[in-house]
Amino acid sequence: MNRSFASDNNAPVAPEILKAIAAANKVDAPAYGSDEWTARAKQRFRDQFGPETDAYFGFNGTGANVAVLASLLRPWEAVLCPESAHLQTDECGAFERFSGSKVIPIPTQDGKLRPADLEPYLKPVDVHFPQPRIVSISQATEYGGVYELNELRALCGYAHERGLYVHVDGARLSNAAAALGVSLKVMTAGIDLLSFGGTKNGLMYGEAFCFLKPALGGTTAPFVQKQAMQLASKMRYIAAQFDALLTRDLWKRYAGRANAMTKRLEERVRAIDGIRITRPVRCNAIFATMDRSAIERAQRDYAFLVWDERLPEVRWMTHWATTEDDVDAFAAALERAVFPK
Amino acid sequence: MNRSFASDNNAPVAPEILKAIAAANKVDAPAYGSDEWTARAKQRFRDQFGPETDAYFGFNGTGANVAVLASLLRPWEAVLCPESAHLQTDECGAFERFSGSKVIPIPTQDGKLRPADLEPYLKPVDVHFPQPRIVSISQATEYGGVYELNELRALCGYAHERGLYVHVDGARLSNAAAALGVSLKVMTAGIDLLSFGGTKNGLMYGEAFCFLKPALGGTTAPFVQKQAMQLASKMRYIAAQFDALLTRDLWKRYAGRANAMTKRLEERVRAIDGIRITRPVRCNAIFATMDRSAIERAQRDYAFLVWDERLPEVRWMTHWATTEDDVDAFAAALERAVFPK
Amino acid sequence: MNRSFASDNNAPVAPEILKAIAAANKVDAPAYGSDEWTARAKQRFRDQFGPETDAYFGFNGTGANVAVLASLLRPWEAVLCPESAHLQTDECGAFERFSGSKVIPIPTQDGKLRPADLEPYLKPVDVHFPQPRIVSISQATEYGGVYELNELRALCGYAHERGLYVHVDGARLSNAAAALGVSLKVMTAGIDLLSFGGTKNGLMYGEAFCFLKPALGGTTAPFVQKQAMQLASKMRYIAAQFDALLTRDLWKRYAGRANAMTKRLEERVRAIDGIRITRPVRCNAIFATMDRSAIERAQRDYAFLVWDERLPEVRWMTHWATTEDDVDAFAAALERAVFPK
Amino acid sequence: MNRSFASDNNAPVAPEILKAIAAANKVDAPAYGSDEWTARAKQRFRDQFGPETDAYFGFNGTGANVAVLASLLRPWEAVLCPESAHLQTDECGAFERFSGSKVIPIPTQDGKLRPADLEPYLKPVDVHFPQPRIVSISQATEYGGVYELNELRALCGYAHERGLYVHVDGARLSNAAAALGVSLKVMTAGIDLLSFGGTKNGLMYGEAFCFLKPALGGTTAPFVQKQAMQLASKMRYIAAQFDALLTRDLWKRYAGRANAMTKRLEERVRAIDGIRITRPVRCNAIFATMDRSAIERAQRDYAFLVWDERLPEVRWMTHWATTEDDVDAFAAALERAVFPK
Repeated sequence: MNRSFASDNNAPVAPEILKAIAAANKVDAPAYGSDEWTARAKQRFRDQFGPETDAYFGFNGTGANVAVLASLLRPWEAVLCPESAHLQTDECGAFERFSGSKVIPIPTQDGKLRPADLEPYLKPVDVHFPQPRIVSISQATEYGGVYELNELRALCGYAHERGLYVHVDGARLSNAAAALGVSLKVMTAGIDLLSFGGTKNGLMYGEAFCFLKPALGGTTAPFVQKQAMQLASKMRYIAAQFDALLTRDLWKRYAGRANAMTKRLEERVRAIDGIRITRPVRCNAIFATMDRSAIERAQRDYAFLVWDERLPEVRWMTHWATTEDDVDAFAAALERAVFPK
Repeated sequence: MNRSFASDNNAPVAPEILKAIAAANKVDAPAYGSDEWTARAKQRFRDQFGPETDAYFGFNGTGANVAVLASLLRPWEAVLCPESAHLQTDECGAFERFSGSKVIPIPTQDGKLRPADLEPYLKPVDVHFPQPRIVSISQATEYGGVYELNELRALCGYAHERGLYVHVDGARLSNAAAALGVSLKVMTAGIDLLSFGGTKNGLMYGEAFCFLKPALGGTTAPFVQKQAMQLASKMRYIAAQFDALLTRDLWKRYAGRANAMTKRLEERVRAIDGIRITRPVRCNAIFATMDRSAIERAQRDYAFLVWDERLPEVRWMTHWATTEDDVDAFAAALERAVFPK
Repeated sequence: MNRSFASDNNAPVAPEILKAIAAANKVDAPAYGSDEWTARAKQRFRDQFGPETDAYFGFNGTGANVAVLASLLRPWEAVLCPESAHLQTDECGAFERFSGSKVIPIPTQDGKLRPADLEPYLKPVDVHFPQPRIVSISQATEYGGVYELNELRALCGYAHERGLYVHVDGARLSNAAAALGVSLKVMTAGIDLLSFGGTKNGLMYGEAFCFLKPALGGTTAPFVQKQAMQLASKMRYIAAQFDALLTRDLWKRYAGRANAMTKRLEERVRAIDGIRITRPVRCNAIFATMDRSAIERAQRDYAFLVWDERLPEVRWMTHWATTEDDVDAFAAALERAVFPK
Repeated sequence: MNRSFASDNNAPVAPEILKAIAAANKVDAPAYGSDEWTARAKQRFRDQFGPETDAYFGFNGTGANVAVLASLLRPWEAVLCPESAHLQTDECGAFERFSGSKVIPIPTQDGKLRPADLEPYLKPVDVHFPQPRIVSISQATEYGGVYELNELRALCGYAHERGLYVHVDGARLSNAAAALGVSLKVMTAGIDLLSFGGTKNGLMYGEAFCFLKPALGGTTAPFVQKQAMQLASKMRYIAAQFDALLTRDLWKRYAGRANAMTKRLEERVRAIDGIRITRPVRCNAIFATMDRSAIERAQRDYAFLVWDERLPEVRWMTHWATTEDDVDAFAAALERAVFPK
């Protein structure tokens, strides 16, 4: 199979991660997180996100989002999110089914929520409508965009003044931090709840859900983790991966590489007439339109998504293992697809 | 850490399994199960459990039980199970929360359900009570026991005549099959729904949930798998493990080893006055009573569970990696704990 | 208290309805719907809505909507509705909590869904997103509008071709039918699922949820009715009310009166400068804008809602008991509020 | 139809209750409980149950139980109740479906929970099992028994010391209080949560769910009431009934009459050879065994339940409207059924 440009979850596991798993495999260890790897990985989260961070590990992104939101919400409380949010469009209603709460999707131009978008949904308390309690945003966004730090600050300020928590779906937080050139801590200043992605940044499996401020999840999160089927018996193997990822800035190396490869692809593609990039390129995704027949030709050799059938608009993603040669070969294939002989 | 006798989930990952993971890591692969490892692993399940088997992979045992039961049940239908079932005692109500259905626990002497136990719960249809629809049993049981083949046949016959499906929580099905000396197919003849354990038998993570007869889960299981947060994006790494486990009878080798080590421990322990084995020893668990002070002394060096504080009754488990030396050393430690100098 | 123009649920119970209750009160009767009143009321529904109608009775409108939708939907199936739907805005997420399913709100201009609105939501089957299965519309709409018969036909045709059911939230179906001058049967031709309102049209309590085509709710609805806490033990008292309402066109008399009083109010109000009617007036509701200070003055004597604080837009409703004198007095009060001396 | 001895919910509505409804029907009134009848009825509850009582009104008994329990519980917390509890046997899992929590049924001899019954279920906090949080008992019990005041005190003391709340399913609390000859306040001293029945004691519909101590339900109950589909729009008609029931001891008159008629029936029946009363007769129910053929003969003229098909054991209930003549005629019919000519 050629390098996939379909998704960063098509990537293999990074070698340092696999090594960390093997290193955790030498002895017996207690189950359900009472092991030394879990303790160490939790400490890494405190190191990277601040000393009050309370991190839990789950299996996948949907699980992490559900668990962190349901740890805080009562079933008559609601989550406000962009209508493009993974939570709204790609989790098959897992959150609603598990929590009983309502997700209220808000239309946006670019997948980013701004204070003015929230305002119409914030009304006086009334039993007839679920009470908004959490604002959930994706950083990076599902369109490959990023919130600038001042945008995050403005949104958090607005939300906190109105008694709302801010959750970041950070399935690609590393990519956003690498794009902005800031630490994870700076990236998440002011944020209350975080889903931190591992699988899309070199891990085999494992996502973290984090309470970044004291007393947010302490008494409820362990039960929610268990009920949400996210409590691994052999927890050490998730923990060991995160321990490695958050050591010596591996997260930044992987995400930086993914971003750089997308940047390279962007340059190549901008030179091709017949391909139009449709959204700002900030992280590891490019959205573009091209002829339907060109798409079909390109897909004969390379896997990538048709994001919006109607335009048609495609999405190309790179990941930690994408190489310069991969990018160049893919760009050449795209060019051939657009201008077949 | 000394070898753990606390649980088979304290074991490391078996070397062949780790190798299979590494072998699956060389290229990019499609996500969410559209990969070749998943196809191959599903075929292995058909080979081992019969050609009509429809297998799905989830992350953990609770997830597998919830997904397979919820694929069939409507929220006004109920599951009948022994009150000692993992589903009732150790899944924190995950099934009830996710499915809305009711688990009806039935008292038993030994953790095994028999037709006569079911009878009082089978009444004419009535909207005032959830309608029993699935009988769930554990093979091996939570007490280390096994259902004999004729017991399984009798239970299935009784259930099917009354329109009930039979589900087996097979977190330790391999141990039961190894104990009975039968194939997985013979072991599950007549069964409708199966949770097949991997994590307790040498895997890093991964449990399968299987529909053993046609048309049971086909249209619903994929959605339930997703909603139950059990759909891995990098599915190939679970599939590769099961592919290996079900090849060249690895499952039997691991489980057989675990059972044999328990048998060895049983022999050693029966010779120790002051320890009384309380339940039949069939698989990889021994239940025993001993002095509270002896327990405390033994636990200084070895991890194991106090199952019932009141007696007190302890549980000792072995697993694929337990060695004869481990057993002998542990037995010696128990003896010293019972007869301290 | 002056006549309320806040809602048709501020009305008292109509005298014929109270009489029917008293008539049902002379003897003992079986509980939970095994009584003669329930049998008769179910027959009335078949008479009015067609011989295949299967009607059940619940307590309130939220209960009826939840029960009828949840009788058909699996938790990974979704309801498409206008974002102004009562189901979306006024039921506090009861449906999501009870069913686990997702409501997908669709923006509209006037609270009415048209086929083109649905199209973007109908994609190929994919486990990552809840599968649309029911289109739910309100007739009359929450803005006092009505779907014309040809609009209903077009919507049903479009939906049925795509495997979707059509549900009508008919909390005010009687008002819509009276406005269109058609029978309930003509009004609901092609519709699959119906919540039929009683409380807003003269009843004390009681809403019906109906399956208008064979085999839609038969085996599931009774259990859902019970689980949704909508199964009355003394069912006869709901049934007797519906029996009366659907006899000798009482429903039309009440709804027609409510509509006529709104029409009268509309005429009066159109003559008042400073009040602007904002939406088409078809049934028993008027939406209008006026000065904030005028609203405050008017509300000193009369109860009515401020629908949208920002404009501000108010809503005035009439009901079966509103009289011409009530309307004239209210219109006069509005005029005084707009032009205070 | 002859007087029914099947259930107290077969009774008509008591005349004073119907009168109270009619009296509430003269004017328009605000919806959803913002009316004067609701305010007055809530005051009646404070008068009868203590000044800290916070009462809400729902439609039926299942709804009241679900709403009061779900107002307090998180989904990983459990309710302990006798396995004979209505909550466990007759609510079709509505509670589990709505709340996601687990009901843990405890076997008892007589439908009454005692501290020793609870002990085995109270273990150290552990994420693997739902945490018991509420003990729910029925007063009167489903077997027609009553808890004595000292039994209630002992149970409450035991529960409170262990951080558990005590809920009383008081669908027939009036009958228990009448049987014990105490006020409702004395009856419920120490209790935290109460479902107070109206429908079985002369009402048309309506049950109250009450928080008897400060700060138990305040912020959550209104939302749960709405989500549980128990918030009546025309609330005044439930409130007016409760207002009447709790005025001038109507509750005691109705329940006392029901109890007295059962006492009279007991005396008559004890004189009939071939009928054996199987349980203590304290309130308005008699349980008895008699020949299967005698049951069939008696059921030709009178409605009553076969409680346990296997013995067979029957249940006879009386209610507020049962007369001495009804009892005597029924006893005579039973005698004829036992000794047919």
